[in-house]
Amino acid sequence: MNVDFGNALASEATLGVSGASLERLDERVAAIHDRIETGIEDREFGYASLALPDDTDPEAIEAAVDDFDPDAVLTVGIGGSALGAETITAALGVDGHYTLDNVDPARTRGLLDELPLESTLVNVVSKSGTTAETLANFLVVREAMARAGVEWADRTVVTTGESGPLRELADEHDLPTCPVPDGVPGRFSVLSPVGLVPAAAFGCDIESVLDGGAAGRASLEPSLFECPAYAYGAVAYALEGRGATTNAFVPYAEALEPLAEWFAQLWAESLGKDGLGQTPVRALGATDQHSQLQLYRAGRTDKLVTLLRPHERVDVPIPETGVESLSYLGGATLGELLDAEFEATEASLAAAGQANVRLEIDRLDGESVGRLLYELEAACILVGELSGVETFTQPAVEWGKRAARGLLGGGTFEEAEAVDDKTVRRVE
Amino acid sequence: MNVDFGNALASEATLGVSGASLERLDERVAAIHDRIETGIEDREFGYASLALPDDTDPEAIEAAVDDFDPDAVLTVGIGGSALGAETITAALGVDGHYTLDNVDPARTRGLLDELPLESTLVNVVSKSGTTAETLANFLVVREAMARAGVEWADRTVVTTGESGPLRELADEHDLPTCPVPDGVPGRFSVLSPVGLVPAAAFGCDIESVLDGGAAGRASLEPSLFECPAYAYGAVAYALEGRGATTNAFVPYAEALEPLAEWFAQLWAESLGKDGLGQTPVRALGATDQHSQLQLYRAGRTDKLVTLLRPHERVDVPIPETGVESLSYLGGATLGELLDAEFEATEASLAAAGQANVRLEIDRLDGESVGRLLYELEAACILVGELSGVETFTQPAVEWGKRAARGLLGGGTFEEAEAVDDKTVRRVE
Repeated sequence: MNVDFGNALASEATLGVSGASLERLDERVAAIHDRIETGIEDREFGYASLALPDDTDPEAIEAAVDDFDPDAVLTVGIGGSALGAETITAALGVDGHYTLDNVDPARTRGLLDELPLESTLVNVVSKSGTTAETLANFLVVREAMARAGVEWADRTVVTTGESGPLRELADEHDLPTCPVPDGVPGRFSVLSPVGLVPAAAFGCDIESVLDGGAAGRASLEPSLFECPAYAYGAVAYALEGRGATTNAFVPYAEALEPLAEWFAQLWAESLGKDGLGQTPVRALGATDQHSQLQLYRAGRTDKLVTLLRPHERVDVPIPETGVESLSYLGGATLGELLDAEFEATEASLAAAGQANVRLEIDRLDGESVGRLLYELEAACILVGELSGVETFTQPAVEWGKRAARGLLGGGTFEEAEAVDDKTVRRVE
Repeated sequence: MNVDFGNALASEATLGVSGASLERLDERVAAIHDRIETGIEDREFGYASLALPDDTDPEAIEAAVDDFDPDAVLTVGIGGSALGAETITAALGVDGHYTLDNVDPARTRGLLDELPLESTLVNVVSKSGTTAETLANFLVVREAMARAGVEWADRTVVTTGESGPLRELADEHDLPTCPVPDGVPGRFSVLSPVGLVPAAAFGCDIESVLDGGAAGRASLEPSLFECPAYAYGAVAYALEGRGATTNAFVPYAEALEPLAEWFAQLWAESLGKDGLGQTPVRALGATDQHSQLQLYRAGRTDKLVTLLRPHERVDVPIPETGVESLSYLGGATLGELLDAEFEATEASLAAAGQANVRLEIDRLDGESVGRLLYELEAACILVGELSGVETFTQPAVEWGKRAARGLLGGGTFEEAEAVDDKTVRRVE
């Protein structure tokens, strides 16, 4: 990606960072770069994520799905086991990838009623093989396939760790499997089978995605002024310290909307700890100009707005119209209108002193998207190191998991008892 | 809706509000209630929104779409001209409602290629009739219909103001039209034709939605302790003042995901001004427990988390499994798992001192959803009055509109010149 942080400088933005501050910050970036490089080379927990472009075997993934020619792929996973795969197929413009990443009965039932189960590939993803939402949905999916007269074991691929119930199930039924790589938290696993199986099942060129990741790997340099990933991370960190506690991530491409959700998990779960962390806000250009821009421009000065767009697009001309007040639209294209709105929004925020950063990729193809994903991960890891948090863990999620399990009779947990003690103050 | 703000009290949450503070705040609520009632009765600008359940004529809407029996409805609109209509059809479980609310060429082209244009009803919505994104898309849609051999004028319904290009076009071609009500900003127009036309075209009972709105109207009382809408608004306001500058709005129902987007516009565009306003964050339960919960629990203490669920759901049993570590799931239902996660998350936030509020509706039907929409609007208006902002305007959006228009050659605007002066600091 290219990064332009001109509108995040102190000369432009109320919370902006001065050139001298960035120079000083760059000394820390150089030291952290060494730390990250060592972590990658030694495949340390978390840092191993940045080795995935090398470590992932695309041929093994392709072999796992080679026997299927699905009309639809149904990914059953949640969080990092779903968002990366959704991000890649959406960015590549693939139709037919559906996800069960919630336990809303209406959604699960509705989707299973709609899908052609006889030509659907079920892609079940859980590192531990025990994720409650994923396994509950998978049990319902299996039953629906049986009812439809489809042999589930003939149409299921499993991505899981080396042991656990899903691994045992796969062994028992001789299912094709892909590994969840060691040392890689779910939200950093997009460049592994966790993110690539559905795209491979549709025949996408997943090697190009990994090539993009490798290009991201090659772009890591020990200076924020030389490395787009570190430039973005360092500026985001500097602005957070100055009060930008929110990071509104706004792609100007519908196909990148899942990427904004993927980014939100990456940022929130990696950096939201010890009382720190920007709150990621998912938005979409140009749509949310008619929803969120009022707030971004005139609300609290507590935001970094990250604007993302591809340089090149397949475009659609706007037909001419005889209506005078609309004649300026005729002869332009939808893409030109979208780009004009991108630049107008960026300037509009700058004119109000609201910090923003521009990220650009060449186009929506495997290489550009693979590189973008890699660079955003590297940016996040840099912020984690600068902030001094444990980037690769998510301890605060465990409390609720134990409480939910206890409520469902899956054991005795004191967290479940706390649920009954809720303070109620009801207005009806 | 029912509101339970027990977990937003000072006894439970770091940013929580004391009972004594709420008592004092209630005196202001009573005065503001009188102001709002006067505004409603006099149909003052903005306040007229809360008169819509009475003022909207469902039969006129039904008559406008009576001649169509569409397989799909394509709403062409943006912001408040799209989000309300999407919210209602999604909440009612209608399939087949599509929206062009962006000018992404790939999305517009892809959707037009996919839709059965000969049996699609095009629903174009713009109060002024000049909204650039909407009119550009509509011109492209008309051309696509012509190419497909479909007479666009036979399959288009227009919702617009009393004058402007869309009104003229409708008159010229004798199209069925619905009015955009006077005195109602787009984000408050969901209980008018702007929000109801697509649902009516699919034969939904839109009168029940308006009945729900009327029930919301009847529920307005001059005390936050007696009125759910004011309870939610007053608590949100009190917490914003104590540092909850973010409002994470988390429905536990996939069908309410568009409602979270609708809420985000309502909150951001109404309250994001004069350096005030909570940043609305759209999330979805239980999915985002695996994405955002780490941050909500252990990140900055600057959030109100609003948890929303329906009491009753159509449910799906989870099949039994022989796997011991998963046996607690068998015999439960997806809905029970979702509810357990809702309560676990609520308790998990409370145990960490993170303020949260529970909103509940009876079920996903027209009456409950209509009432919820009305009450959230009333809550928003209360917050605007308490904050002293101009709830019903969105002045900060205009700058960018003029810049974009200038960039496209639609006139000379100094804002467009500012775009060329951008400070560039690029890392490639």
